[in-house]
Amino acid sequence: MSKERTRISASVDLAAQGKQRGFLTVPHSRNDSAWGAIRIPITVIANGEGPTVLFTAGSHGDEYEGPIALMKLADELEPSAVSGRIIILPTMNHPAVRSATRLSPVDGRNMNRAFPGRYDGTVTEMICHYVYYHLVSRADVVVDLHSGGKTLDFVPSVVMHRLEDRELMDRTLSAIKAFGAPVALVLVELDNEGMLDTVVENAGKIFISTELGGAGTATARTVGVADRGMRNLLRHFDVLAGDPEPPAEGSRLMHTPDGGCFVPSADAGIYEALADLGANVRKGDPIGRVHFFEDQGRPPALYAAPMDGMVYSRHVPGLIGRGDCLAVLATDYTG
Amino acid sequence: MSKERTRISASVDLAAQGKQRGFLTVPHSRNDSAWGAIRIPITVIANGEGPTVLFTAGSHGDEYEGPIALMKLADELEPSAVSGRIIILPTMNHPAVRSATRLSPVDGRNMNRAFPGRYDGTVTEMICHYVYYHLVSRADVVVDLHSGGKTLDFVPSVVMHRLEDRELMDRTLSAIKAFGAPVALVLVELDNEGMLDTVVENAGKIFISTELGGAGTATARTVGVADRGMRNLLRHFDVLAGDPEPPAEGSRLMHTPDGGCFVPSADAGIYEALADLGANVRKGDPIGRVHFFEDQGRPPALYAAPMDGMVYSRHVPGLIGRGDCLAVLATDYTG
Amino acid sequence: MSKERTRISASVDLAAQGKQRGFLTVPHSRNDSAWGAIRIPITVIANGEGPTVLFTAGSHGDEYEGPIALMKLADELEPSAVSGRIIILPTMNHPAVRSATRLSPVDGRNMNRAFPGRYDGTVTEMICHYVYYHLVSRADVVVDLHSGGKTLDFVPSVVMHRLEDRELMDRTLSAIKAFGAPVALVLVELDNEGMLDTVVENAGKIFISTELGGAGTATARTVGVADRGMRNLLRHFDVLAGDPEPPAEGSRLMHTPDGGCFVPSADAGIYEALADLGANVRKGDPIGRVHFFEDQGRPPALYAAPMDGMVYSRHVPGLIGRGDCLAVLATDYTG
Amino acid sequence: MSKERTRISASVDLAAQGKQRGFLTVPHSRNDSAWGAIRIPITVIANGEGPTVLFTAGSHGDEYEGPIALMKLADELEPSAVSGRIIILPTMNHPAVRSATRLSPVDGRNMNRAFPGRYDGTVTEMICHYVYYHLVSRADVVVDLHSGGKTLDFVPSVVMHRLEDRELMDRTLSAIKAFGAPVALVLVELDNEGMLDTVVENAGKIFISTELGGAGTATARTVGVADRGMRNLLRHFDVLAGDPEPPAEGSRLMHTPDGGCFVPSADAGIYEALADLGANVRKGDPIGRVHFFEDQGRPPALYAAPMDGMVYSRHVPGLIGRGDCLAVLATDYTG
Amino acid sequence: MSKERTRISASVDLAAQGKQRGFLTVPHSRNDSAWGAIRIPITVIANGEGPTVLFTAGSHGDEYEGPIALMKLADELEPSAVSGRIIILPTMNHPAVRSATRLSPVDGRNMNRAFPGRYDGTVTEMICHYVYYHLVSRADVVVDLHSGGKTLDFVPSVVMHRLEDRELMDRTLSAIKAFGAPVALVLVELDNEGMLDTVVENAGKIFISTELGGAGTATARTVGVADRGMRNLLRHFDVLAGDPEPPAEGSRLMHTPDGGCFVPSADAGIYEALADLGANVRKGDPIGRVHFFEDQGRPPALYAAPMDGMVYSRHVPGLIGRGDCLAVLATDYTG
Amino acid sequence: MSKERTRISASVDLAAQGKQRGFLTVPHSRNDSAWGAIRIPITVIANGEGPTVLFTAGSHGDEYEGPIALMKLADELEPSAVSGRIIILPTMNHPAVRSATRLSPVDGRNMNRAFPGRYDGTVTEMICHYVYYHLVSRADVVVDLHSGGKTLDFVPSVVMHRLEDRELMDRTLSAIKAFGAPVALVLVELDNEGMLDTVVENAGKIFISTELGGAGTATARTVGVADRGMRNLLRHFDVLAGDPEPPAEGSRLMHTPDGGCFVPSADAGIYEALADLGANVRKGDPIGRVHFFEDQGRPPALYAAPMDGMVYSRHVPGLIGRGDCLAVLATDYTG
Repeated sequence: MSKERTRISASVDLAAQGKQRGFLTVPHSRNDSAWGAIRIPITVIANGEGPTVLFTAGSHGDEYEGPIALMKLADELEPSAVSGRIIILPTMNHPAVRSATRLSPVDGRNMNRAFPGRYDGTVTEMICHYVYYHLVSRADVVVDLHSGGKTLDFVPSVVMHRLEDRELMDRTLSAIKAFGAPVALVLVELDNEGMLDTVVENAGKIFISTELGGAGTATARTVGVADRGMRNLLRHFDVLAGDPEPPAEGSRLMHTPDGGCFVPSADAGIYEALADLGANVRKGDPIGRVHFFEDQGRPPALYAAPMDGMVYSRHVPGLIGRGDCLAVLATDYTG
Repeated sequence: MSKERTRISASVDLAAQGKQRGFLTVPHSRNDSAWGAIRIPITVIANGEGPTVLFTAGSHGDEYEGPIALMKLADELEPSAVSGRIIILPTMNHPAVRSATRLSPVDGRNMNRAFPGRYDGTVTEMICHYVYYHLVSRADVVVDLHSGGKTLDFVPSVVMHRLEDRELMDRTLSAIKAFGAPVALVLVELDNEGMLDTVVENAGKIFISTELGGAGTATARTVGVADRGMRNLLRHFDVLAGDPEPPAEGSRLMHTPDGGCFVPSADAGIYEALADLGANVRKGDPIGRVHFFEDQGRPPALYAAPMDGMVYSRHVPGLIGRGDCLAVLATDYTG
Repeated sequence: MSKERTRISASVDLAAQGKQRGFLTVPHSRNDSAWGAIRIPITVIANGEGPTVLFTAGSHGDEYEGPIALMKLADELEPSAVSGRIIILPTMNHPAVRSATRLSPVDGRNMNRAFPGRYDGTVTEMICHYVYYHLVSRADVVVDLHSGGKTLDFVPSVVMHRLEDRELMDRTLSAIKAFGAPVALVLVELDNEGMLDTVVENAGKIFISTELGGAGTATARTVGVADRGMRNLLRHFDVLAGDPEPPAEGSRLMHTPDGGCFVPSADAGIYEALADLGANVRKGDPIGRVHFFEDQGRPPALYAAPMDGMVYSRHVPGLIGRGDCLAVLATDYTG
Repeated sequence: MSKERTRISASVDLAAQGKQRGFLTVPHSRNDSAWGAIRIPITVIANGEGPTVLFTAGSHGDEYEGPIALMKLADELEPSAVSGRIIILPTMNHPAVRSATRLSPVDGRNMNRAFPGRYDGTVTEMICHYVYYHLVSRADVVVDLHSGGKTLDFVPSVVMHRLEDRELMDRTLSAIKAFGAPVALVLVELDNEGMLDTVVENAGKIFISTELGGAGTATARTVGVADRGMRNLLRHFDVLAGDPEPPAEGSRLMHTPDGGCFVPSADAGIYEALADLGANVRKGDPIGRVHFFEDQGRPPALYAAPMDGMVYSRHVPGLIGRGDCLAVLATDYTG
Repeated sequence: MSKERTRISASVDLAAQGKQRGFLTVPHSRNDSAWGAIRIPITVIANGEGPTVLFTAGSHGDEYEGPIALMKLADELEPSAVSGRIIILPTMNHPAVRSATRLSPVDGRNMNRAFPGRYDGTVTEMICHYVYYHLVSRADVVVDLHSGGKTLDFVPSVVMHRLEDRELMDRTLSAIKAFGAPVALVLVELDNEGMLDTVVENAGKIFISTELGGAGTATARTVGVADRGMRNLLRHFDVLAGDPEPPAEGSRLMHTPDGGCFVPSADAGIYEALADLGANVRKGDPIGRVHFFEDQGRPPALYAAPMDGMVYSRHVPGLIGRGDCLAVLATDYTG
Repeated sequence: MSKERTRISASVDLAAQGKQRGFLTVPHSRNDSAWGAIRIPITVIANGEGPTVLFTAGSHGDEYEGPIALMKLADELEPSAVSGRIIILPTMNHPAVRSATRLSPVDGRNMNRAFPGRYDGTVTEMICHYVYYHLVSRADVVVDLHSGGKTLDFVPSVVMHRLEDRELMDRTLSAIKAFGAPVALVLVELDNEGMLDTVVENAGKIFISTELGGAGTATARTVGVADRGMRNLLRHFDVLAGDPEPPAEGSRLMHTPDGGCFVPSADAGIYEALADLGANVRKGDPIGRVHFFEDQGRPPALYAAPMDGMVYSRHVPGLIGRGDCLAVLATDYTG
């Protein structure tokens, strides 16, 4: 499988033992560099027997807990502590991380809708293709760290999809519980075409994601959730020794049962939140208002909670547009 | 003074009694509208005797507590409740609010470095000129609501400058105490050329500003601080009846004694905060790190607190550049 | 057929009776809205038996008679007046209408060269796919309203292609006569790959288009042609009761017999028209000049009519470039 | 006066007899040409005694009747036919004409708000300064040809300002009557700071402007009005021999008595004109509607004529914004 | 083969005798020209029997020796001097030549990675498709002239790939020797997907390329190499009479044996070359330094020659980025 | 003088002894950093008595010999070797160096036309003001290193202006001879408003400039000229010990006697040089051609030498525009 054709070359040997740090080199001819390239940092730490865990972050370039936590993990972990193999890509969509944008500035693509990619495609497609055919193919567990980016904010959480395969569902559920985030969430994905999640799940492998915060920033608190969660996962899978730390008091197992959890805005204007992240609301409670700041005296539009639940995610920018996701509600998961 | 030449026209009579809602019209010839104009909403509420309070927000277009709170104040206040005159400009730098940018997209100017403006200048300069010569000139108290915008975040606070004029200092200090924010801050401004603050203070009038939050968003909590603070101020100046609400438990009077409170970054990379907003730190404590995410294996740069204090403001974007303000520390003010 | 996979969801039930107004929602993840969407207004009016007529406009975002006339039609028509079903999309290429551009600002595509689209393609391709597989599939007649946009202007006209299928040709010809525009035109399309026209015609359905004016604007006169024409068509197809109004005096049935009707510019400069829209010219008559305004004293290039005919379309912008279409001539159609 | 300092050099001798064609060279250091320059074509035709008439066009770069008519005049006129001096600048704001924009692409300035300019200013200011101190200073009559540009359209007209100086008013009025346009208009300028008009009028010289059409294009008809008008003016001032042609039947002398003639839009949306250019309307007649094309079902905003009059100018683009000029009405001038 | 479907039309008859000059017309609907087109100059010179040689240049729009030499060749050659057929496309990627960019400004594609193209693809893909299926299909020899463009500079050279097909290798090698450039180079292409080279070689035809200089400019010297080389090739293939001129003294036959010849930069900063183009270096010799001009006092990074050889190519821009090709070394080819 | 107001702060003490390396900090509020700053590296090396020499480079951001040579000089020089004071600004227009553009990307200004600047002006004006009032004011000699940038190329040369002040002329002339470049040139500046040169010369101080190469790059050879020249100057002024190295064989003292040395292009197209840099030409010799690559068959425009002389400078980009400087000729200077 790893023999799949690619235009990307790696300066590390993915099969070797020990700790290696290097780059994936993606050819990228540009107006400002005819024979230019994109260099994506990669770290491989391997020792003895055990599963292979692939950690990726920076799929969207404006999400920061993942890249920070993975850079530190790659700096700190030594082979002697490891049983198995850890592959770390802190900035998988390196051009997007450089430009601090969700989408790749090179081809405008959303990397998490471009899997499994094409070896002769655009830069994003080439990276997706390499990650899927050369890295995922070697992995038993894939952990792809996300946050809300510049335009969404989340209660720090570890996330999995509801899966058809019951056994995979159970194994993944026990892994996200081990992660130890304030919220562990089972998500119903409405539009999963082209996600890394989908191609990994379809390959029958364990896939874990996160939504660790957002607003285009990271805090000491949310990075701490990531740090702890990744070590807990490695312990859970016996790649590191010891047991996962027990989750903090108040941690919740939740889910978004269906599309009705998502509250879209039908209006454009200045958004005023009436319920902050983490607030528990009842169906019908006011959760936000859109102010028509250009039209003197036009009354603002009011948005109410469509169900009982917790404000799990919210729109960040002060301006909101028609069709933007204003908030997402989640409820406790009872299985 | 209000006879000063201007190209801006108002659809409201600034001297009339009652409640009027209208627009300031700024001519703006553009490629996409030869005879176009910018319309800035303005509300005037006047009744009987009493001081004139000018409320402005949206000087920077990516700060939201002020515009939201002022739109609601303008909607809700009725003349019968008022003694004096309230002039409200929720989106003073209207083009910047429309584009959700700190600076005006029309001329690239920072409005709060363009006062007192020019009647025949750029759009920003024309607005500044009108605000200063036609509105400030009528006011006894000027309240200019700010937040951190997209790139800074603050502990919600009401702010004044340290003033030479002792009597004005005392009157302003008692007003910011009445505002009732979690922090009332006396700021040493290092670079005050062209600020609205400066021209108002130089005119011997009371000037109050705020830093109510930031990150290019507003929360229910921070808008609440603004709502409460403005009504408290109006009560303090007897424009509304009643006493200001007492400040919440834990509110602090603080200051930034000198330029040493500001921690600039000497590096460019991904910023990891090690102390969150509101944290109390000791001189030498680590407060942040800059990760060189493009250079595999280069150790991150560490930044330490230059003094004892509270983290009053912090850099928001995940990427930081050389010269960016990484954090601001404040200490308790003892007068 | 309507079971075709799609990422687009409709808030209206296309099969229900009565009048419904809602939106097609197209997911659109952007740097400024991670979970954003495009909302395309749709109106469905159904009552009893009768054919289904699909009206679309805004395929190009800088053409205005169609969107205006369709918004009014959707506002005004009530189910009781209808026999059959009318589906109305006034701004089919909604992002292009918002940006007032011919091409979609999202992906740079010309919507009328992107049919039948792809369910997992770019935004334009997703919309084309939905329109073809979910709306055209339900229709008996498709009317797609065009004008010249910002860079072309036309004598207001209803247009059909010359068709191989004689019976479809006749039925369509009688429909465009019923429309009642100043000109009814039979067009030879030189480059019809990817047009809505082509995919509808290939499905054996009646397809009618228009060129109602242009120059990036609409006039009371050209909107009137659209208003009248659409009601005439609905009467012609017995969806509305009554007979079509007879065409105005001087209306002409014309055609563009071959590629020789199109006059391309070989030069770049300022374009001076020597014959205005609707003028009748003889082969060899001067119709325009290109002035080399940067080269003092260089004589302008003269363009002559390549055939006898009427100036049916002309280049609008004052500047013309090499390869631009300077004018199109049409001649009377005798069948 | 012509000794005024300037960075612009002319390749023609403004004082010489005969016909000369050359360039004004404006130094313009750019990223793509360190020692670049802008070359503005100029033609001088001088013979014997008589007044000096300065013709300018292209002050706004998207207005075409003037440049076309002046290029032809400069090509065709020979000194033997002339008594006096004619100076012709068909593309005064040459960078704007190249980019087909109202404003200069170099510095974003509206040339007709930048007079009298600065010798050491931006490119627009340098040109204004040269035109005023080196060309207007030599002229007895200044004719500056305008049209509506891309965003406005006008009934073809010759225009003057209402002037305080009665004698200058009368001389100018008799000149615009001689021009022979469909409409001769006396305009009340609301905002005349920085106009070429203003600095010429203030110098006590005759200033004549035009609004010959618009929509970013020119037609054979409107260029014809310009051609005829300029020759009529030259005959009126005895620079060419013979009498002006009498105006066409139906020509009107009109005025815009005050600011109430201008109808601004308070809304943003798709603009539907209900009265076309040249239509005569009564106060209260509907003249346009703004459709809220994003908000399904929200009724359009209706605009009515604020006075009796003729629709003299109208908004061109299909989209309209808040503050845009929707229409201008004019009434007959009775002196 | 030439019957392959295409949207491109040619104004010349590729099969006719004599000299014809015309255009390939590529339809290109744009926001600024709804029915616009790209016109690519083409010259065909045919006389009697003999091979068909296709000359192309301007595949990248910032390389100038090829376009200049081909425009002159097309101007000067007369059919009487020719035996066979010469097809000349001096600006194959015409939009890129107009914008002086390596990549097409229309679709962002690198033309030399887009072969064999698609008839219904983007503009670049349509051109590639036409060149391959309509021109290469008629040719015996294809000569595609390149230089380094704005970001690379080369010792003027004629270039071929190392080919599997021994007989084609020998015939091509003898042709590049006949060209007579200072360097004739046998290149190992590391990433040849989508190159014109590849599709021509795979068709078993002779393919010759060049790297004639670079830095976004051309000199009298490098254009001379192109002029001479093309006539030498035509003589070599007996399309022109006479023998090729013997190569200049000091001409070398060289190669780049493997990927180790390419020196990538791992750093971003100001690049200081320590060995100029054409210098002979030994393995380990310093060849360049990257200065960290933003970090006062950080020592520059030094780059050494990875092998003995000549500096055959170098990075041009003063700034260099991570992954940019800093230099290429070549060594003498001994077969 | 150094007490002049400024918003810029320095981290070095300009008056102290020894070697200091630090930054000038220019406040720069931006949309992406509300409290951002520009940091310009500065090095001061002072020891004992002797003159103060100010070295600046990077006034234009696309010229590289100066910044490279000055960074190395600042790294290498130790106070013990110095008698006097050396102030070094390798990237005076730091934002332009970062963006590799001639003009500042912040305000679009050409720094070498913005002196003496304004303390409250744009970023470029603030830097000019600081350099003039705080650094030039302390200097006896100012050396401002230039090259041709991306669009011009020069024979490596040291340059001075022809000065009115005979004594200053002689002292400067003897300094440029000591510099030891291939050409020492006395330049007649046609447009010297706002240059650093002008304000320094007007202050009666020695001002020396260079044109060390160009084309947006630097070579080992041209950096060598800069390295040698600066040390020679320091020896000439006795700041370093020893005598300047004698100039290389073939070095010439030349001048550009008047504006006739500059050859502007009247055409736009692809530029073919017919005489390379350094070539000696006779009046009337062909030096270049402009090819009209879009107009098949239009003959190129030929440009001839306007005087006998050497090709001292030439246009670099393959495309040339109207008004661009095609070449500059220089002749031997005989005093």
